[in-house]
Amino acid sequence: MSDTRDLLRERAARLDAADELAGHRGLFALDEGVYLDGNSLGALPRHVPDRVADVVARQWGQLRIRSWDESGWWTAPERIGARIAPLVGAAPGQLVVGDSTSVNVFKALVGAVRLVDDERRDEIVVDATTFPTDGYIARSAARLTGRTLVPVAPGEVVDAVGPRTAAVLVNHVDFRTGRLHDLPGITAAVRAAGALAVWDLCHSAGALPVGLDAHGVDLAVGCTYKYLNGGPGAPAYLYVARRHADRFDSPLPGWNSHADPFAMDPEYTAGEGAVRGRVGTPDILSMLALEAALDVWDGVDVAAVRAKSLALTDFFLECVGAYAPAGRVESLTPAAHAERGSQVALRCAEAPAVMAELIARGVVGDLRRPDVLRFGFTPLYVSFADAERAAAELADVLERIPAGTPAA
Amino acid sequence: MSDTRDLLRERAARLDAADELAGHRGLFALDEGVYLDGNSLGALPRHVPDRVADVVARQWGQLRIRSWDESGWWTAPERIGARIAPLVGAAPGQLVVGDSTSVNVFKALVGAVRLVDDERRDEIVVDATTFPTDGYIARSAARLTGRTLVPVAPGEVVDAVGPRTAAVLVNHVDFRTGRLHDLPGITAAVRAAGALAVWDLCHSAGALPVGLDAHGVDLAVGCTYKYLNGGPGAPAYLYVARRHADRFDSPLPGWNSHADPFAMDPEYTAGEGAVRGRVGTPDILSMLALEAALDVWDGVDVAAVRAKSLALTDFFLECVGAYAPAGRVESLTPAAHAERGSQVALRCAEAPAVMAELIARGVVGDLRRPDVLRFGFTPLYVSFADAERAAAELADVLERIPAGTPAA
Repeated sequence: MSDTRDLLRERAARLDAADELAGHRGLFALDEGVYLDGNSLGALPRHVPDRVADVVARQWGQLRIRSWDESGWWTAPERIGARIAPLVGAAPGQLVVGDSTSVNVFKALVGAVRLVDDERRDEIVVDATTFPTDGYIARSAARLTGRTLVPVAPGEVVDAVGPRTAAVLVNHVDFRTGRLHDLPGITAAVRAAGALAVWDLCHSAGALPVGLDAHGVDLAVGCTYKYLNGGPGAPAYLYVARRHADRFDSPLPGWNSHADPFAMDPEYTAGEGAVRGRVGTPDILSMLALEAALDVWDGVDVAAVRAKSLALTDFFLECVGAYAPAGRVESLTPAAHAERGSQVALRCAEAPAVMAELIARGVVGDLRRPDVLRFGFTPLYVSFADAERAAAELADVLERIPAGTPAA
Repeated sequence: MSDTRDLLRERAARLDAADELAGHRGLFALDEGVYLDGNSLGALPRHVPDRVADVVARQWGQLRIRSWDESGWWTAPERIGARIAPLVGAAPGQLVVGDSTSVNVFKALVGAVRLVDDERRDEIVVDATTFPTDGYIARSAARLTGRTLVPVAPGEVVDAVGPRTAAVLVNHVDFRTGRLHDLPGITAAVRAAGALAVWDLCHSAGALPVGLDAHGVDLAVGCTYKYLNGGPGAPAYLYVARRHADRFDSPLPGWNSHADPFAMDPEYTAGEGAVRGRVGTPDILSMLALEAALDVWDGVDVAAVRAKSLALTDFFLECVGAYAPAGRVESLTPAAHAERGSQVALRCAEAPAVMAELIARGVVGDLRRPDVLRFGFTPLYVSFADAERAAAELADVLERIPAGTPAA
């Protein structure tokens, strides 16, 4: 293996030298380890601590209540939404930041059913393989709107939609396998059936072009703490296509979404545009940490991010194939680029013990129980050398943890 | 007025010298001004910036994903709920922190209707004078559960409840007038009618004893950025009385509320106790800033806070009465202690101009359009000298802004 390894290390060095995004790594607080869990929690951009310190000590501590105006706190949800918009292919004015992804799934699905406004459309179709919270919340939205939940695999959505479908919720990238679903094709089929397409972008935004406007998506949600590096539990976002904005009828019409919130009017009048997706007072510390973190995207072309992402995952899979003992791991991630997100999922019977040892060695991926090793490749800060090293460490760990080792 | 002022200043000095909470003022970042807007955004506790810096730079920046376990991120919502519990008279295990107040009102009201589980109870009664978001969200909860919203003044709740009432939502302290509503009496009447009592504690928690358990409240919500000083938009909390915990059925059953969230089970199984009130991934930066801020409550007796609050508002009203030109301001805040929260609201025809000038002089209250001057008294850091100075500045501003001056 030694000759092979030398060759692959040389390849990694050449790829890193040619990488136009390589300079971005220095923007992040990283150590000597290999961080392949940015698809769970993005690394800290180095400039964020100073920005957060200013928000806490000066904006809150000194200006206090005046910061709602003077520090731009009140308008942060729309302003930060406008920063994220180009990363997901949305023109300004359609995104708002706030609340968790789960809460935004609820707004989007109940909102979609109300936009359709047709009792005969009594079904909500949901990706049966999705991150579970989407399914739980979709069931709640169905229950509260008197609809029936229809869970189907994403590949079956096109056949499942019809005259009874109100809305369809699909996750753009499967959190477990890393499979990228066909957003343009599914969206077109859903719309052709007269239903609305709702996408969860948690595992795609910041890793690949999404093209919400270009593909005619109706509503979308996504988190900001994975590839967008917004920090732990940073607020999520809601996209409502402009053509629906005037009729979007939120199930959570908090005072922040009112046309004149400080009138304290007992009657509710919805605001215009993205503001309708707001609910209560925004969590300013988390939100402004996210705003600061988004600076790392200045001047970045998402197409370049996607190209590097595919090159990284290709190279990692090649290294794993070259180094790993035969038969110990099996890739669940599609080989076809059109079907691959920015992670590699490897099935491994000894996954819990293997991941624990990898983490102990500074190669941080994560485990999806019971038997999936998950490695996320964040193009802004993961290098080809990281990918090679992770594969080599994985191979070494597999040699030391024999097949059949029970989970700890 | 000079002699009167000397006397009142001396009184203030004596009251401050005897104040057992006076030492707490030094825990906060305050300047030479008078901050009477802690009922909108509490002041920054001095130790919070260092704690937040550690969360950002070390917990996020260095430990990254490991912090979900190693830094206690995952359990923060229940842990911080347990810190707030004694401040509102709740035994541990019934409070959880997360999401905005508006989102928690939605969970509480839909949850209450489901707990009652009786189609004949087809009404949700809501405080018609409440902070508007409660009314907007209550209307949404009624719409989604097929109930009718019945807005009534808090004084009429006892007469309004009956066999058709499912739940009643009342704000403990009116955000505009500062009136304290009769939580024990209204709760008893609501429960006697077979309905559930839901309280909004935004303007009472941290300012006066609430006694959720003692008075048999069913559900409650509250924010943490006013008297609890948690920071701008800090997450709110949800209280579900232990007797209801096993049957609480959240309309927002996100994966964080699952009995085994990391099993990623497509089927939802609710967790036990307070965890049922969780939804999505918690906003860690805002949440841990709140946790740090709660340290200022160590060893504080809420009864002492209440006693000081009443003494402060009494004294401020006395000073205003002594200094202000006759007929220019009228207190909307009840004189009776049993009916007073921790703020003083003064009606003043020239309120916009008067508050702008007060703020320019460093006396920060706020305006509730069109004509209410609102002054919040936070017993942990407002002194009697502050109250006297605020009243004197108010009187001086009223002299300089004649009656009849139009709003800017």
